[in-house]
Amino acid sequence: VARLFVESALSEGAAVPLTGDQAHYLGRVMRRAPGDPVRLFNGRDGEWLGRVAALRKSAGEVRVEACARPQGAEPDLWLVFAALKRGPTDFLVEKATEIGVSVLWPMATRRTVVERTKAERLRAIAIEASEQCDRLTVPEIRPFASFDEVMARWPADRRILLCDEQREAAPIAEALARLDGPARAAPWAVMTGPEGGWDPSELDLLRNRPIVTPVALGPRLLRAETAALAALSCWQAQAGDWRSPRSDSVPSR
Amino acid sequence: VARLFVESALSEGAAVPLTGDQAHYLGRVMRRAPGDPVRLFNGRDGEWLGRVAALRKSAGEVRVEACARPQGAEPDLWLVFAALKRGPTDFLVEKATEIGVSVLWPMATRRTVVERTKAERLRAIAIEASEQCDRLTVPEIRPFASFDEVMARWPADRRILLCDEQREAAPIAEALARLDGPARAAPWAVMTGPEGGWDPSELDLLRNRPIVTPVALGPRLLRAETAALAALSCWQAQAGDWRSPRSDSVPSR
Repeated sequence: VARLFVESALSEGAAVPLTGDQAHYLGRVMRRAPGDPVRLFNGRDGEWLGRVAALRKSAGEVRVEACARPQGAEPDLWLVFAALKRGPTDFLVEKATEIGVSVLWPMATRRTVVERTKAERLRAIAIEASEQCDRLTVPEIRPFASFDEVMARWPADRRILLCDEQREAAPIAEALARLDGPARAAPWAVMTGPEGGWDPSELDLLRNRPIVTPVALGPRLLRAETAALAALSCWQAQAGDWRSPRSDSVPSR
Repeated sequence: VARLFVESALSEGAAVPLTGDQAHYLGRVMRRAPGDPVRLFNGRDGEWLGRVAALRKSAGEVRVEACARPQGAEPDLWLVFAALKRGPTDFLVEKATEIGVSVLWPMATRRTVVERTKAERLRAIAIEASEQCDRLTVPEIRPFASFDEVMARWPADRRILLCDEQREAAPIAEALARLDGPARAAPWAVMTGPEGGWDPSELDLLRNRPIVTPVALGPRLLRAETAALAALSCWQAQAGDWRSPRSDSVPSR
């Protein structure tokens, strides 16, 4: 059954309009017709079953029938990353969405070469990944910002798992295993630097903050997007919603 | 300093011929000239410093000077995966190489759509990733085989971390944390199915083998390549060479 993210409110009997892209996808790509079932979610009202009520070339409507899954808590895990080239950034947004991040925040550090990211493009990738992986939300894409802006606006209680290529960082599994109660209950972010590495002044600033936990990811030099996905996976496995069996479709931390 | 994988033996004073691709890369892409330093490794003799001795358009030679890093033990971790389309397979080979697998073995399961993989192409990707990530080896690319062939040739002592989308599998961090001594000492493989999922007969066969540990990767449906990278990262973090700090450049399990 096709699964679509929509902006409209979802409730029994609601008529939900489709965008041109969605109508094209359902009709041309998936070869669906009026009467065919569809699954809808909007990030607020859970997942709903519905049926195609009308379908033209660039418009359409779904009639909502029944709630299939209630909205539930999801991990509060950000990914704050030095922007990469288009290919690796696209890939990172898709994979981080599947792994379960709540916010994606691209930034410019001192050694970041990329000068901007297109929030619209990244949001489209995040929506498609959310549709495919059965999420009930779409991660928020924050506007591109400098490292200094990110740190100036940083929420006081949000902890940072810092991917740190330097030798003094603790191995990631060890760092995650020894988190104490308050650290486990806190919201978190994984933070990764650019291909050229962190500037020493940035690392000094980060390492001196008590909210920052620097971690090491083994003896090889990982590309920035590989490090981000590895750190997110380890966090989810040891501290996030991967700790529950798959049957809990709507887990909470 | 450019870093190249070569087939030749490496020792002080050795003259190592470059392939046409390597000569092109050094001369045209990296703009290097005779006298410039190069790092070389061959998977057997450690890493050596050398200097470009000759460089033409499609040939060249490096004179080996000194050993920079001895060959050491690396994790014995295979990735056995249902072959994916070209883009995701390329991506998986690159990332799995960085994460540190020793063998990549593409296979055809019952529901695998892809009918072959090009071993030469995958090896070229694995070599480039090895050069970039400071590995001292290049992972072996096994020839494409059916699931039945893979299982028929399976080494009796090699354990399998099975990415299992079904609900009865244990969360991955829990499964890795409770491995006993013999299980930790054993060689391992991560095994992933195709986009369409495992056939029930395959899952039955795998789950009935005592060497198989099925694991779950959270409540979302991960794409096959995302699941593979997540499982490899978790294994490395909790049971592999990511347990040592980054300063151990040549760790052993």
